[in-house]
Amino acid sequence: MQDFPGDLPAITAVLLARLRAKALRVHCITNGVAQNFTANMLLAAGVTPSMTIAPDEIGSFVESADALLVNLGTFDAERRQAIEVAVADASDGIPWVLDPVFVERSAQRAAFAGQLVARRPTVVRLNRAELSALAPDGLAASPVQFATENATTVALSGETDVVTDGRCSIAISNGHPWMARVTAMGCAGSALVAACLAVEENAALASAAALLMLGIAGEMAAERSRGPGTFAAAILDAVHALDQDTIMRRARVASGFSGLSAVLETGGKL
Amino acid sequence: MQDFPGDLPAITAVLLARLRAKALRVHCITNGVAQNFTANMLLAAGVTPSMTIAPDEIGSFVESADALLVNLGTFDAERRQAIEVAVADASDGIPWVLDPVFVERSAQRAAFAGQLVARRPTVVRLNRAELSALAPDGLAASPVQFATENATTVALSGETDVVTDGRCSIAISNGHPWMARVTAMGCAGSALVAACLAVEENAALASAAALLMLGIAGEMAAERSRGPGTFAAAILDAVHALDQDTIMRRARVASGFSGLSAVLETGGKL
Amino acid sequence: MQDFPGDLPAITAVLLARLRAKALRVHCITNGVAQNFTANMLLAAGVTPSMTIAPDEIGSFVESADALLVNLGTFDAERRQAIEVAVADASDGIPWVLDPVFVERSAQRAAFAGQLVARRPTVVRLNRAELSALAPDGLAASPVQFATENATTVALSGETDVVTDGRCSIAISNGHPWMARVTAMGCAGSALVAACLAVEENAALASAAALLMLGIAGEMAAERSRGPGTFAAAILDAVHALDQDTIMRRARVASGFSGLSAVLETGGKL
Repeated sequence: MQDFPGDLPAITAVLLARLRAKALRVHCITNGVAQNFTANMLLAAGVTPSMTIAPDEIGSFVESADALLVNLGTFDAERRQAIEVAVADASDGIPWVLDPVFVERSAQRAAFAGQLVARRPTVVRLNRAELSALAPDGLAASPVQFATENATTVALSGETDVVTDGRCSIAISNGHPWMARVTAMGCAGSALVAACLAVEENAALASAAALLMLGIAGEMAAERSRGPGTFAAAILDAVHALDQDTIMRRARVASGFSGLSAVLETGGKL
Repeated sequence: MQDFPGDLPAITAVLLARLRAKALRVHCITNGVAQNFTANMLLAAGVTPSMTIAPDEIGSFVESADALLVNLGTFDAERRQAIEVAVADASDGIPWVLDPVFVERSAQRAAFAGQLVARRPTVVRLNRAELSALAPDGLAASPVQFATENATTVALSGETDVVTDGRCSIAISNGHPWMARVTAMGCAGSALVAACLAVEENAALASAAALLMLGIAGEMAAERSRGPGTFAAAILDAVHALDQDTIMRRARVASGFSGLSAVLETGGKL
Repeated sequence: MQDFPGDLPAITAVLLARLRAKALRVHCITNGVAQNFTANMLLAAGVTPSMTIAPDEIGSFVESADALLVNLGTFDAERRQAIEVAVADASDGIPWVLDPVFVERSAQRAAFAGQLVARRPTVVRLNRAELSALAPDGLAASPVQFATENATTVALSGETDVVTDGRCSIAISNGHPWMARVTAMGCAGSALVAACLAVEENAALASAAALLMLGIAGEMAAERSRGPGTFAAAILDAVHALDQDTIMRRARVASGFSGLSAVLETGGKL
């Protein structure tokens, strides 16, 4: 296992500056629960969202976008068709993120997600239950092995986030428990991953930077809110206000195999 | 008319503790306007929401859920199919709530809602206009009679909420006018009713407890916000922070026929 | 070019009072991203939203509504059918607003929007990129010419908003940059335009009043929030709290050809 290439907090500040400087657009095929919050998260980071799911026009939207998010949260017939078209278009030239929401709840969804994994998403962003449902070894699934076997990058969310492309891994322990009390927080995180992929070719670096931004913003937001309702608004403010000093000061990351082995095995805090 | 069984505020505190202690999931078939706020309301109460409407996978979601919400707010073809499947699955073992949003506006919707009432929802949560549209006696409709005739429990929202299973009734006069200025507040209340049904078999008690939680949270939120926008976030904070002392101190409830007759006839404040 | 008829700030205060006094309902066919925020914006202004898109019941909803909003943000098959029915019904008696979101991104959407413009919406509310995509002269498109050629009123959003019916024009320079950092702000503005059309026959006056309300509310909200997340809630508070004094004191408007020529040509601040 190699060390992670470079200083993640410093790289994160650079990627954030790029997001704000460029007029990027991320096309999101996402669920009805998450659309509004996801769009506001991208806007807070300086990125334009687009969200159409109409199969006959999604091609135009994806071709001119800078990255694509495919989220399976609401799994209706029209979205499935749209995903087919969008992934085919994205594979020709832009990075795309798969977020296999609730894939552990339904065999149909797991099968569909499995087909999408085979089409090599740039990143798969998921939680432990979703990884277990997608990996052949179930509960014992290792993100490193999943990334290697599927030639993708895994961004595994949890109390400690783990990002790995199979060769390098990094763990991020920023965040706040209220992030799990706001719907679509994971979905919005996946959208930030997609945005960062548009400004950084190394998918593991881009994913880790996005999750670090969100985790730090969550800590800032918790200090300014009274519960999960005001927190949801405050985390958007925090992403908008995020700066290099804050990132450098607050980041809690560990990279490479030795620093990560405990995290990967236990899911515990660094 | 019997007295309501037990001390509602104390029971409400117990049910809230159960919601927080158990890892419950409520499956919601709800409208696009309400999905995000409803999900956040459940999360604030410690409950996991799921929201898929795909007919071919909704069965898996409902079978493993602890309760079901069926809300007619957006009445598209796919949701109607999903409702058919979900109600059939729920009837085998989990409680379900019908929220017949805007049923007074469309004959198609009223007919569909009527068919769902005939399938015996555990609770029907609605407002006065919706009750009038569903009951054969229209404007003069009595929630007690509607509950009796349809062998269900009615949770009637208004300035004063009334819950009745035909035998026992209770009125709750907590709440705040801004609750009517935030979209999906009623829908989110119905989701809380569904959650409480998962931890309390007596449907009238569970429904009254849910509406009491929401009404008290509304009063707390109004004290911390400047208008309906910040109020919508603050009520989620308040549900998250709700405790037994606050419930016992703030609850304004009346039970039994004598205490309720004025409310049932006039809809006035207690 | 004629001067705008009357004192816009004073008229805006009158229209706001009418919105609050009457029990109006605006039916919105809008995208999943915007539904919740749009509904809350209407509620903050004292107006009831309805949002169904089911083709077989939308007629009932539109016939009994006071105005209609048609927003193309999510362009699925069911919404397209619903739009056909709704526009036919609205054309018989209620004002309707077309908001051709992202029409510059897809030829299908542009073609569909073009057909809708030909059916004479009371108002077309759009931004510069959308106007360019719909007008035959593209980037050089003039809102005055577009309004004249299509016998409609144009409400063009930007740093300075311009409203014109081809004969009279008005420019509004209220607002705040965070309005562009909250998704669905334009969509919600279009819903306010629809609401104002229900209480004022002069479409240019109604549109300008709606955009002035929103712009002033945006300035108030920015003073009470820390970033785009809290701003989104605060602007709803501000619309709810808006009063005549604030409108008169804050309004920055210019009318007639001479006052507007610079704005129309440059899009610059007044």
